[in-house]
Amino acid sequence: MAVHNVTVEKTIKALLDEKKYPTLKDILITMEPADIAAVFEELDEQRMPLLFRLLPKETAAETFAELEPEWQELLIRGFSDTELNEVVNELYVDDAADLVEEMPANVVKRILSQADPQMRKEINEILQYPENSAGSIMTTEYVSLRPTMTVSEAITRIRRTAINKETIYTCYVTLDRKLLGTVSVKDLLTCIDDDTPVSEIMDENIIAVSTHSDQEEVAQTLSKYNFLALPVVDTGGLMVGIVTFDDAMDVIVEETTEDIEKMAGMLPSEKTYLRSNPWDLFKHRIPWLALLMVSATFTGLIITSFENALAAQVVLTAFIPMLMDTGGNSGSQSSVTVIRALSLGEIDFPDLPGVLWKEIRTAVLCGFALSALCFAKIMIFDRLILGNTDITVTMAFVICLAMAITVVIAKVVGSTLPMFAKKLGFDPAVMASPFITTIVDALSLLIYFNIARAILFN
Amino acid sequence: MAVHNVTVEKTIKALLDEKKYPTLKDILITMEPADIAAVFEELDEQRMPLLFRLLPKETAAETFAELEPEWQELLIRGFSDTELNEVVNELYVDDAADLVEEMPANVVKRILSQADPQMRKEINEILQYPENSAGSIMTTEYVSLRPTMTVSEAITRIRRTAINKETIYTCYVTLDRKLLGTVSVKDLLTCIDDDTPVSEIMDENIIAVSTHSDQEEVAQTLSKYNFLALPVVDTGGLMVGIVTFDDAMDVIVEETTEDIEKMAGMLPSEKTYLRSNPWDLFKHRIPWLALLMVSATFTGLIITSFENALAAQVVLTAFIPMLMDTGGNSGSQSSVTVIRALSLGEIDFPDLPGVLWKEIRTAVLCGFALSALCFAKIMIFDRLILGNTDITVTMAFVICLAMAITVVIAKVVGSTLPMFAKKLGFDPAVMASPFITTIVDALSLLIYFNIARAILFN
Repeated sequence: MAVHNVTVEKTIKALLDEKKYPTLKDILITMEPADIAAVFEELDEQRMPLLFRLLPKETAAETFAELEPEWQELLIRGFSDTELNEVVNELYVDDAADLVEEMPANVVKRILSQADPQMRKEINEILQYPENSAGSIMTTEYVSLRPTMTVSEAITRIRRTAINKETIYTCYVTLDRKLLGTVSVKDLLTCIDDDTPVSEIMDENIIAVSTHSDQEEVAQTLSKYNFLALPVVDTGGLMVGIVTFDDAMDVIVEETTEDIEKMAGMLPSEKTYLRSNPWDLFKHRIPWLALLMVSATFTGLIITSFENALAAQVVLTAFIPMLMDTGGNSGSQSSVTVIRALSLGEIDFPDLPGVLWKEIRTAVLCGFALSALCFAKIMIFDRLILGNTDITVTMAFVICLAMAITVVIAKVVGSTLPMFAKKLGFDPAVMASPFITTIVDALSLLIYFNIARAILFN
Repeated sequence: MAVHNVTVEKTIKALLDEKKYPTLKDILITMEPADIAAVFEELDEQRMPLLFRLLPKETAAETFAELEPEWQELLIRGFSDTELNEVVNELYVDDAADLVEEMPANVVKRILSQADPQMRKEINEILQYPENSAGSIMTTEYVSLRPTMTVSEAITRIRRTAINKETIYTCYVTLDRKLLGTVSVKDLLTCIDDDTPVSEIMDENIIAVSTHSDQEEVAQTLSKYNFLALPVVDTGGLMVGIVTFDDAMDVIVEETTEDIEKMAGMLPSEKTYLRSNPWDLFKHRIPWLALLMVSATFTGLIITSFENALAAQVVLTAFIPMLMDTGGNSGSQSSVTVIRALSLGEIDFPDLPGVLWKEIRTAVLCGFALSALCFAKIMIFDRLILGNTDITVTMAFVICLAMAITVVIAKVVGSTLPMFAKKLGFDPAVMASPFITTIVDALSLLIYFNIARAILFN
């Protein structure tokens, strides 16, 4: 059963107050590292390090890896050299590399000075790769087997080295670091003849990524094939590490959050919402707000240029928000759908004609339905019930025609802009609701006023 | 290296035309099931079943599981009873249950008639659980061990049964189906003494979900603890199955797509974009479009009630889109951020005061910055450069004050509505951009016109 954090947290705080350390130790060893980390982050700065020291060595390292960077820093600053040495060398290499990336320079110096030479070498290797690349999220710890080993030799080797390897269940058959194939522990265990050489049962269909592949692509490949880990090869084709499924899951969640932030007109943030202060939020939100506000100048200019028409028929103004919002919503629907399909790899630029044709037909259906509804609403509600006699049948027709055309144009713009953005190497997620809304606003007003001028004022 | 589908597809099509079946067979066995499925879906209805019959038994079943439902149906309709029997009984139970859920009734009858009695029993068990529950995505195939087994007995048991179990790497120690603990193959392999009883090395801190847990919660739990699989227990606390990491990854992607669709004012769709025809898209998009269009009536009424003021100062109209859009964008930023934090389990209803206070401070910063920028823009661009002398300093002040207040209110509404929605049991994702925009539009106009009336027309 999942641990109820709130209750456990209370118990732990009470026991801490009473200094009942042996009992605390007994409670902590029954908990998962992720849950211990969650409780630790609720404690104050004095008591957290105290509690951390009660953890057994391996759990301590795993809990440490689950903590947020500021808590990790707090702990490291309080650690003696021996303590730091123990924690750092117990970490998986990819977690250690993450740690080094997050910490300020003086802390990094201390971490690296306490890391074993092998660990230090591996951390440095990972840090050389560009941010968000396969190289930057891989671990250099994996089980490699020689093709000539027999199944029983392979199992012996796994049993001997498994303690330090993050994922043992897929083993990589290599010769001079060149990847020849993969073999799973399941294959080894279910092989009937213990003397079969590994090369005979290995899977030679290798799916691998390069150190410079984008982490999102890596996560998608891993998820597509349902693998536990993906091998990472360098530019020379030699195997350098693996990306494990748990990191891939985190990448999927992170990248989606970034996409969602961009779609809502924000700069993507590395920090979680709770860890961001108002100043952080401000910095991520103001650029698009300001840019879009200034872009609305065009919409203002369009209205100004039709000032005389509007002064003559003020009732036209009352329908501006409805037209603009419906256009914006129609455009957002298409852009968000297309952006998601692009980011899931479902469609790509060559699909543009197909997407466009599908969106146009959908838009015609939506435009027709909405303008019929709008016509009924105007005639029944605005004219009959509210008795607004300024609204004529012709005027209702103008509004509905503008509505239908706006919906079609909004869907065309909304679906094509993200695809062009991707083609030109920009992030399609930026072409979402706020951006599309601004463009569609201007277009919808131009359509509306021009139709009004042609029909009402000719 | 990842297979280049386009090239392989061409080769396969050419070889099919030339009827070179042995060569085709050789190519297919080098490919991953997911890639084979992708190629199959590009073929026509005659040739796909032909190619499918070239696959070895196990690959055939795995490829079948990767195909889209309409292709599965096509294959089943063409299968002889023997062929159907082979494929169905080779599937993992959860894939078979998925299949039964997707197929029309007459096809389901044939599938169940060909399934082994054990398989039929297990499929039926899974189908009893509500949609999107842990029970509906679990598999009933897992390795269970008795607590009294020794390590070597456990390994022997795994070796004997592993061929039919989806995930062997975590084994479940049970007594009369009651879950006592878990033990990983890694623990078993690295245990020094082969005669140690399993009960001594098993992990007794059990993290399990219930059959009725929501699949999203299951996926998050699995991802939080980096587990390969989570045990599922029934209401009596007895173990009934496991949910594996690959299904959890699919759930995360699916649920996020649903959230994104809702945030953009669409009903979530089960079909992928490419598989949806315009009529499907229309049905998912029109309800919110229509509802939001009708809601814009309020905005229209507000404008109508200030008609006289607007007729006197038409220039005020020109700034309506800018105010409404900036308000809408500010509100969307907050609502989308809060919705994402809610769905990742980062915040919950009790965090409301903290969220509100953070958003208010952010909003004051944004409001101040935007209105300063707006004032400069109006005075320099609209008044000086365009020479629009209708715009006075007082009017610029009215616009900027309305802007600042709108931004603050938009962020308050945007951040609190999703939290209240969740508290009341609605889906917070619905309270995103389009909905917030409609509310903020009305509020921003009320603020704008009332400030204008108080300052300009008093």
